[in-house]
Amino acid sequence: MYELTIPFHEAEPLYQQIYEYIKVQMKEGRLPAGTKLPSTRKLAEHLGVSRSTTQLAYDQLVAEGYLESEPCRGYFTARLETLLRVEQKQKRREKQEGTEAPRYLVDFSLRGIDLEKFPYTLWRRLSRESLGDDNRGLFSAGESKGDMALRLAICDYLYGARGVNCEPGQLIVGAGNEYLLMLLHQLLGNQVIAMETPTYRQAFLTFERLGHQVIPIKMDGNGMEREALAASGAKIAYVMPSHQFPTGIVMPIRRRMELLSWAAEENGRYLIEDDYDSEFRYRGKPIPSLQSADTKGRVIYLGSFSRAVAPAIRVSYLMLPEPLLERYETTCSFYASTVSRIDQRILARFIDEGHYERHLNRMRGIYRAKHDALLAALSPLSDVFTVSGEHAGIHLLLHSKKGRTEQELVRAAKEAGVRIYGLSEFDIGNLGRDEGEGTVLLGYASLTRDEIEQGAALLAAALSV
Amino acid sequence: MYELTIPFHEAEPLYQQIYEYIKVQMKEGRLPAGTKLPSTRKLAEHLGVSRSTTQLAYDQLVAEGYLESEPCRGYFTARLETLLRVEQKQKRREKQEGTEAPRYLVDFSLRGIDLEKFPYTLWRRLSRESLGDDNRGLFSAGESKGDMALRLAICDYLYGARGVNCEPGQLIVGAGNEYLLMLLHQLLGNQVIAMETPTYRQAFLTFERLGHQVIPIKMDGNGMEREALAASGAKIAYVMPSHQFPTGIVMPIRRRMELLSWAAEENGRYLIEDDYDSEFRYRGKPIPSLQSADTKGRVIYLGSFSRAVAPAIRVSYLMLPEPLLERYETTCSFYASTVSRIDQRILARFIDEGHYERHLNRMRGIYRAKHDALLAALSPLSDVFTVSGEHAGIHLLLHSKKGRTEQELVRAAKEAGVRIYGLSEFDIGNLGRDEGEGTVLLGYASLTRDEIEQGAALLAAALSV
Repeated sequence: MYELTIPFHEAEPLYQQIYEYIKVQMKEGRLPAGTKLPSTRKLAEHLGVSRSTTQLAYDQLVAEGYLESEPCRGYFTARLETLLRVEQKQKRREKQEGTEAPRYLVDFSLRGIDLEKFPYTLWRRLSRESLGDDNRGLFSAGESKGDMALRLAICDYLYGARGVNCEPGQLIVGAGNEYLLMLLHQLLGNQVIAMETPTYRQAFLTFERLGHQVIPIKMDGNGMEREALAASGAKIAYVMPSHQFPTGIVMPIRRRMELLSWAAEENGRYLIEDDYDSEFRYRGKPIPSLQSADTKGRVIYLGSFSRAVAPAIRVSYLMLPEPLLERYETTCSFYASTVSRIDQRILARFIDEGHYERHLNRMRGIYRAKHDALLAALSPLSDVFTVSGEHAGIHLLLHSKKGRTEQELVRAAKEAGVRIYGLSEFDIGNLGRDEGEGTVLLGYASLTRDEIEQGAALLAAALSV
Repeated sequence: MYELTIPFHEAEPLYQQIYEYIKVQMKEGRLPAGTKLPSTRKLAEHLGVSRSTTQLAYDQLVAEGYLESEPCRGYFTARLETLLRVEQKQKRREKQEGTEAPRYLVDFSLRGIDLEKFPYTLWRRLSRESLGDDNRGLFSAGESKGDMALRLAICDYLYGARGVNCEPGQLIVGAGNEYLLMLLHQLLGNQVIAMETPTYRQAFLTFERLGHQVIPIKMDGNGMEREALAASGAKIAYVMPSHQFPTGIVMPIRRRMELLSWAAEENGRYLIEDDYDSEFRYRGKPIPSLQSADTKGRVIYLGSFSRAVAPAIRVSYLMLPEPLLERYETTCSFYASTVSRIDQRILARFIDEGHYERHLNRMRGIYRAKHDALLAALSPLSDVFTVSGEHAGIHLLLHSKKGRTEQELVRAAKEAGVRIYGLSEFDIGNLGRDEGEGTVLLGYASLTRDEIEQGAALLAAALSV
């Protein structure tokens, strides 16, 4: 059996290094075909790494044809012909796809958030303390809606920060927005749902997968059009009044009142308010929630900690008005909570002890600085683009003043090594859009200031014509 | 403002002590009506407890009418009349309900598990190490199906312990069985689903809430009847072949083959195998999974760590056969994983490093001892009951030989202070059952040996006539 001793370094994941090392050994002939490799367990012990690490490396090598796994016998290096076949296949594939996948110098991604300043040490401490000796109860099943302490903390926060009127009894904590929409689907039944277009595609896809008919509704500068909504026949409207994604439109109070009165006109009508990244606003007063203006119990409020804390913290919350709450109690309270009680405990303390507010304040400062840097760096483009969606959220929109299409803009940026996103990616349905006004989106949350400036400079050169 | 100084002790939760203290102060006249209490924040600071603790206490007091919460002003002790009204209401309610809610001396609950021997210290260590400095990546979004390391660990375990043939690519990790059934619903569409009756009600309710027509299928001593299944028109059958809940029936290989051939007869037919508490078997060889006998890709395998590890560990897994996997990849892979990456990491190490196997072995020993103790303690009843479902799982069934009905048995046990469960609680549909053969269920996982013996002795006295 071949002894593998691998000089680990810190720059790459360990499994990657094992994978690379074995590949190089094979290519250089030091591991001839048919050599039996140590088992994943033995290799893990030998290298002092976990077994899942060696398993991952072997798995990758098997998947690519370098190793062959024989049941009950172990892993063997593949024969030379196999190896050649694999490499030819790979080359053929690369040839077919033109070259390799494009590598961007700067990706103005809309998905990332800045995790550099996440309070890791604090989180570890809360986690350690929450798992203390006196908290064995955390391992038993908790309440269906989520632990009372967390629901109280969220209600407190929502009341103070967003003006949401909410009792902890109305709040359901769940593992992510999509899970909560699956739950809501069971309370609403197969209703027709109206959505703004463009919109947040995850929610759109979830409704579609659950069998809802989704009707796209055009927006004017104030958000979802009331007449179009009324004409749609939908009973439910999904809106983002405080900062619509991806347009950044803030729905003024008049339109809010119109939507609320639409909802009140008929029994069973509801507005789902997704209060998407309302935490980040850099100028002017905070925009209150739609729910805070709702006197008739027509707003279902949806919020999440994924953006404001971290994507891996899979905690979202759903605030139900009275009739739906009753339906939840009678038909859905048999579901156990989808969030681990340990995470609920950590998060409750994070909010209760003021860390969440401090974290939001810090992140607001960080994102504002990135926002300002991007706006400043884009100023050379002010003759050819107008900017919108600024002063809030974690992305901007650029609208061509020169009649260039979205596709042209995205392609020109790509040739300059910069990834930007076309607005039409977020369209639902086929309502269309003026071809002339090409609009692209630039997210900045996960980029450093240097990357933002480099990206903007490349864009300025590529798009200023 | 009234200063509260509370002499805390360790026996009760802090919020409970605050609640009790304030109630006693009020009853003894030291907090006259209309006294403004400190805010939850101030009281929390004063007592050195978290704000959620004081909030919980106040909330309870408001709910019971002792305190009144005035918006923007704070909390005030209620007027005497209010208090009297509250107490009268309480007394009236108690009077209406006969006496108080029955207090059982022993509850042979089917839900609990034994958490006494949970390896808390080890879990804390894994948790601490998983949150180490080099694991910041855990706070970013992970793979939709769950992290590869955890899926590899589960596949390894399932192959070794249950004979399940499974690639990590086929496995989806999710926050609990019900969530995974919601996902499966989206892959299967609105199919008619056949279920054994009696069955696991959580799964039945989930299918119903999602709009599936569920057809109950009778069982003979070998499990779901093939002819009844074929006649039902269902495309999907949900079964628990290794240890049916609640009957404890083990499906023999012949019936398994019949069901597999039923599934293979028509495209789109599938068997959902819920491998419910297959971990606990005290005699004979382990029963292999149905999936291990499936050569046509017709079995969807569902498992969970809630019973085998802890209810609060909300991790289940779904193994999809090829056609459904493809559908998942194209239609549902946009869903982010519902399990926090930190929990995934801890659990992967728990399995990988052999702790899971050791924990299962330990728990098997503990449950076997409880199982043996219960069987022995029930021997005085051997003239009036036959026992079934023994040698596996964490509950037993008692069948009356004297023609007593389930209701009679449950009532007689209740009068003796013992809670047992009627089999019909788990029936779905209206297929009925012979009135003569009253069957009751006794769970023993969460009881101590003393409680088991006390409960059995009380039952022996109450049911031996």
